[in-house]
Amino acid sequence: MTLGRDQLVVIGGVAAGLAAAMEARRASADLHVTVLERTGDISYGACGLPYVVAGLIPSLQQLVVHTPEYFRERHGIEIRLNSEALEVLPAKSIVRVAENGEEREMGYGALVIATGAAAVCPPLPGHELEGVFVVRHMRDGRRMLRFIEEARPQSAVVVGAGYIGLEMAEAFTARGLRTTLVEASDKLMSALGGGARDRLADELRSNGVEVLFGERVVGFEGGAGRVARVLTESGGALVADIVSIGVGVRPEVGLARAAGLEVGEAGAIVTDERQRTSAGGVYAAGDCCEVLHRVSGRRVWNPLGQPAVRQGWVAGANAARGDGSTRARYAGVVGTNVCKVFRLEAARTGLSLEEARAAGFDAAETETETLSRAGYYPGAALIQTCLVTDRAGRLLGAQMVGREGVAQRVDVYAAALHAGLKADDIERLDLAYAPPFAPTIDPIIRAAHAARKREL
Amino acid sequence: MTLGRDQLVVIGGVAAGLAAAMEARRASADLHVTVLERTGDISYGACGLPYVVAGLIPSLQQLVVHTPEYFRERHGIEIRLNSEALEVLPAKSIVRVAENGEEREMGYGALVIATGAAAVCPPLPGHELEGVFVVRHMRDGRRMLRFIEEARPQSAVVVGAGYIGLEMAEAFTARGLRTTLVEASDKLMSALGGGARDRLADELRSNGVEVLFGERVVGFEGGAGRVARVLTESGGALVADIVSIGVGVRPEVGLARAAGLEVGEAGAIVTDERQRTSAGGVYAAGDCCEVLHRVSGRRVWNPLGQPAVRQGWVAGANAARGDGSTRARYAGVVGTNVCKVFRLEAARTGLSLEEARAAGFDAAETETETLSRAGYYPGAALIQTCLVTDRAGRLLGAQMVGREGVAQRVDVYAAALHAGLKADDIERLDLAYAPPFAPTIDPIIRAAHAARKREL
Repeated sequence: MTLGRDQLVVIGGVAAGLAAAMEARRASADLHVTVLERTGDISYGACGLPYVVAGLIPSLQQLVVHTPEYFRERHGIEIRLNSEALEVLPAKSIVRVAENGEEREMGYGALVIATGAAAVCPPLPGHELEGVFVVRHMRDGRRMLRFIEEARPQSAVVVGAGYIGLEMAEAFTARGLRTTLVEASDKLMSALGGGARDRLADELRSNGVEVLFGERVVGFEGGAGRVARVLTESGGALVADIVSIGVGVRPEVGLARAAGLEVGEAGAIVTDERQRTSAGGVYAAGDCCEVLHRVSGRRVWNPLGQPAVRQGWVAGANAARGDGSTRARYAGVVGTNVCKVFRLEAARTGLSLEEARAAGFDAAETETETLSRAGYYPGAALIQTCLVTDRAGRLLGAQMVGREGVAQRVDVYAAALHAGLKADDIERLDLAYAPPFAPTIDPIIRAAHAARKREL
Repeated sequence: MTLGRDQLVVIGGVAAGLAAAMEARRASADLHVTVLERTGDISYGACGLPYVVAGLIPSLQQLVVHTPEYFRERHGIEIRLNSEALEVLPAKSIVRVAENGEEREMGYGALVIATGAAAVCPPLPGHELEGVFVVRHMRDGRRMLRFIEEARPQSAVVVGAGYIGLEMAEAFTARGLRTTLVEASDKLMSALGGGARDRLADELRSNGVEVLFGERVVGFEGGAGRVARVLTESGGALVADIVSIGVGVRPEVGLARAAGLEVGEAGAIVTDERQRTSAGGVYAAGDCCEVLHRVSGRRVWNPLGQPAVRQGWVAGANAARGDGSTRARYAGVVGTNVCKVFRLEAARTGLSLEEARAAGFDAAETETETLSRAGYYPGAALIQTCLVTDRAGRLLGAQMVGREGVAQRVDVYAAALHAGLKADDIERLDLAYAPPFAPTIDPIIRAAHAARKREL
């Protein structure tokens, strides 16, 4: 089957892919839009998986946003499940697709590659044992939940203290498992060090999670094909009826590479701000792409849901209307991220001190500790803020940890990074004050004040 | 007693006055700093008064931040309580002061006027009855609490639905009183109309507060010198054992006017960005001053705690070091404010549609309704957002109402107003996402997206 120029093909049916398909539909009512999804699941909130494991959300089904029927019937978007793109041939504007055991070719007028990222499962001895999981896609969650139901694990080891690792440590604990978190570095969430790291580690430990820093996992052991122990470089053997590996993700670029598309230093597909790849008519969006980091000016790999959806919108609009005829541009990221760890919120935006220095900035950091509410108002909790600034006082990054009021406060710094504000400017912001929500002088301003004073 | 040129006199011992005194001390270790406070209270969080009335905070004493001894002993700042400035003579650099029944003169090298604002008590028949209160200063809170202890009121009427009125309605209800809120206009918090107003009114009513819009209070009646009824223009008589009047505040500018200082159209003291008044050596800060509204470009009166403290810092630094030798400037406000109303947060920044049009903008507003968290995450609640933009898409103002995640989200719009961002820019912000804290596309961005679409 070969379809014509009015055919938009999207490879990938989760965040970026569906955002692209929907935006293309909004841009053009006539376009044929087909989404190819390799798995049997589309349109779900993968970020919710840990909360289903925790039992906070009753079933995986609740993570599903829309069914294939919704896209077909409401928006005339053709969804092909269990449909895998095998090869892209940009010169011929053809995708080779495997579906129901058959291979066929689809022609396209425009193509959006939204193949996402895969969780890294290091090929350590024993990684194939039952009970060892990486959690990334819906099917991973389904497998893990089935295992938990059947095997009734009592103890868990989480490998890697990135945000997925932190969320899984909380999830297993909530589920009643004795949980150990093993991290090879001395950082949490890849960049959090110092007081913020210690506070998060304390929160984990006070909730019963054993936290091991500087421990490298070297393998898994078990019996009857099922995991029982996690082996560490220092000779430890951690009891584990279940293991969740969260040591990172890698962009799914096999298809793009084979098609000759440019892949950047960060290992992901290179696009311009219209999400165009190096091949005409081929766009890419989401976790398989590099993006501009607005603070460092470099192209980085930043696989997160919100940027993915927005790149999808941009790719979809441009793919539907053709280059240059739309205003759709992706502005890049400033590296904003937030994670809940039991009762703590940990958030970051911009560059850490190390990242700033590696990017060539003459940077310094300033730590402050302030209350989240008026001191006399019940529930006021300490927020730790670390601001990274350059010698001229320009904000380069912020990290915050606290029981409340962190997740949204970091967004003010994110906006400041977008606008290129200095600590001096941030100090002058007119922010909302009432005793239940902030002290008279907000933590955002206190931290900027301290950072500005440092520069004087 | 006449003191010399190394004497800084500050009139007013709460937010702005003490901020000025402290900043002056930081700027100069040698300066003599004297704070004159008319009442017997200094350094307290007046914004906490409703929460003491509510019983949430056990005693007024907890609102006190620092004692006079703290300022004297730790910072060498002389605090004179019950000390009233009767007259300022800028030509002679003298303040006439009444203290302990005696009058005397104090010379100053620099003077900071931080006389604040007074709650308006309209001279309606019966306003002098016992049980009728305006709540502004510590002593007002003390009187009201004593009355509540002694008279054990069962029913309350709150006159005026500004933020103080809303907080007092909640406070009385929390205290177990049957409470009626009477507002002459059809707005809440002076500018909130439409869906946001309705939602707040619903919240009040579902918590047992009777809410009357478009009702004007014309007087108070009672027996034995104590209030019992509130009379309205439409002929109503509302049962009231206690009445809290919150119909507005006015700047305390008597002293400044008499001294010949320039007072602006908004009725408050005119200063420049260094907080200098029209008289040499005389500064002013806080609720007695006009400030620059950065969105309208006009000088407005914006009596709130956070701007007051920051103007105090600027006045103190400049008063201590002399004009021009410091970088201290006040950048003005964008009109940010937040209020808790039972379980709702209501916040605003910038201009409302009416204010924007009155200021000459060709403005439109866009309302959106979005979830505060991922839809599948427990506790997700609706946030209503109203953005005001001009024809070019520039953000002019925002109002938000919701159960959570409003107080800090509005700060992102406040930062955007400072930086002069357009809806288009706000839509591109890279904001923090995790299911417990936000949907994939944050309400901030959804609202900006809708506002931008409107402009196309």
